[in-house]
Amino acid sequence: MNDDFYMNLAINEAWKYQILTYPNPAVGCVILDKNGKILSIEAHKQAGKAHAEVNAVKKALQVLNPNLIFPKEDDKIYEFIIKHHNNLLKNSKAYVTLEPCSHYGKTPPCANLLKEIGISEVVIGYEDKSDLAKGGANLLKEANINVKFGILKDRCFELLEPFLMWQRGNFSFLKLGMSINGVVSGGIITNLDSRKMVHKLREKIDLLVIGGNTVRVDRPTLDTRLINNGKNPDIFIYSKKQNFDKSIPLFGVENRKVTISNDIKLIKNYKLCMFEGGENLLNNLPNFVSHILIFSSTSFMNRKAINADVKIQKLFSFDMKDNFYIWYKIKS
Amino acid sequence: MNDDFYMNLAINEAWKYQILTYPNPAVGCVILDKNGKILSIEAHKQAGKAHAEVNAVKKALQVLNPNLIFPKEDDKIYEFIIKHHNNLLKNSKAYVTLEPCSHYGKTPPCANLLKEIGISEVVIGYEDKSDLAKGGANLLKEANINVKFGILKDRCFELLEPFLMWQRGNFSFLKLGMSINGVVSGGIITNLDSRKMVHKLREKIDLLVIGGNTVRVDRPTLDTRLINNGKNPDIFIYSKKQNFDKSIPLFGVENRKVTISNDIKLIKNYKLCMFEGGENLLNNLPNFVSHILIFSSTSFMNRKAINADVKIQKLFSFDMKDNFYIWYKIKS
Repeated sequence: MNDDFYMNLAINEAWKYQILTYPNPAVGCVILDKNGKILSIEAHKQAGKAHAEVNAVKKALQVLNPNLIFPKEDDKIYEFIIKHHNNLLKNSKAYVTLEPCSHYGKTPPCANLLKEIGISEVVIGYEDKSDLAKGGANLLKEANINVKFGILKDRCFELLEPFLMWQRGNFSFLKLGMSINGVVSGGIITNLDSRKMVHKLREKIDLLVIGGNTVRVDRPTLDTRLINNGKNPDIFIYSKKQNFDKSIPLFGVENRKVTISNDIKLIKNYKLCMFEGGENLLNNLPNFVSHILIFSSTSFMNRKAINADVKIQKLFSFDMKDNFYIWYKIKS
Repeated sequence: MNDDFYMNLAINEAWKYQILTYPNPAVGCVILDKNGKILSIEAHKQAGKAHAEVNAVKKALQVLNPNLIFPKEDDKIYEFIIKHHNNLLKNSKAYVTLEPCSHYGKTPPCANLLKEIGISEVVIGYEDKSDLAKGGANLLKEANINVKFGILKDRCFELLEPFLMWQRGNFSFLKLGMSINGVVSGGIITNLDSRKMVHKLREKIDLLVIGGNTVRVDRPTLDTRLINNGKNPDIFIYSKKQNFDKSIPLFGVENRKVTISNDIKLIKNYKLCMFEGGENLLNNLPNFVSHILIFSSTSFMNRKAINADVKIQKLFSFDMKDNFYIWYKIKS
């Protein structure tokens, strides 16, 4: 199989954790042994936890030596690998969707880790242009490691783009729960797995934007109860009218700021925003909302479907039991 | 990676050719070299052409020896491999979604091919229970090849199920072309890639079933013009009324039988049937229609969506440029 095949595995693994890694980017990493056998397909899963490269090296070592007992704390894995890799990964090969970092942040630089374990080639999808992290490829090249750039570069950019938008000030996306035939309202559409994933997203975002009509009709709570003790997002009710029944549960959630306004500029004060809604919101999306995330049930429903005229591009789909979700980018 | 990972690659490759292989089943095969590196991911693509195992062994040998020039005729590849494999695949490993065949049909038995090249292990998803082809695993075991059964058995069964239904007398599925929000009518929905694929399916089926109202409104041709010189399917217009304007193009296609009836028993005289239609057909599907194939555009459209109350199960999705299709099974 060619480089595209392995990079594709890394990209798809990383997409599973899109948004969940914030304020870090979603990154995937695949490691092959010296004979070309796949040892690991891993991703960065959460800020403060191990980077994609560290997870992939850890898993690869576990495959080669199941007796190796890794520390439970993610911030100790890097040092453990440096001490105990025992040259098991000498002449192995790594595929990384983003250039390995070269700086000491919460974790030491991944480029150095790859050098230390004796990797012979690193294939990179997208060059890291950030002042903070760039330079990983140079560090590798100086250690005589073969570095290849630009494999599935466009798809690696798509994976990174939400993070780059966030870095520049704002990443906003619309979340919809939809039946096969476009029904998005009138009761619960998706299953528990889908709703748990939505609650995980709510925990990561800075602001949840919702239409005034949805608030009045659905009387939602908009919290993270399905994932226990999650942080509840601030709410922006996108509405001209200011009068809302304050017994609607969302107003009763602790440690939350609720803004009621139709001034979309206020939304852009927040960096990571999820819009939740239906037909009205889809047809009145501010132009800075760039992506749509659709959670799909596997039923046709006997209710009115959502109506709109919007072109989108499919980026990634993931199957859950009975449901699936798809990330799309809105075409301008 | 574990056996599931490699079997999954074989399953997904085979699904791409679902229906197109008839009257043969869709089968996929993955070959790893003696060190566990993936050499090939292949499938059976068309009846009369090479089986999945032959395609996979051919591709694996091409990877290991790019100078090997294979014969162009598919029916000569088997013998060519036997003569020229040169033990390059000694101790390799194969994953096959269906037990390799043991009989001399249009091609010699695949189980024998795997034996001859010196394979050391064959992992099989689903046991072949047909009197004609079964016994491949025994042939392998007698040659001291390690045989493992039942990896992703349920998914391998799903892949094979349309063929098993066809073998028992009838496989019928509904094809829909749909926007993101469930619009299926009122003009062309999907792109050229989707419509070419539909024409490929029309070439393979025995009967195309369509609703009377669609015939009157759309005045379709229902031929295979997008794939040049394809066989055009017989047509069954599902309608009580017999009076149709015979200048509607479908009546003018040569070498085609057109039946107009509401007696669904007549449909079951044909073994492989594709239903094409919209809301009316979806809500009046005969109970022997077991699967739905949805070609999806990547637009929300400002038209009325399809309405129904049907539960389905997602089996396989495939991305094409700007469009994608998903195979579903109808839940009873």
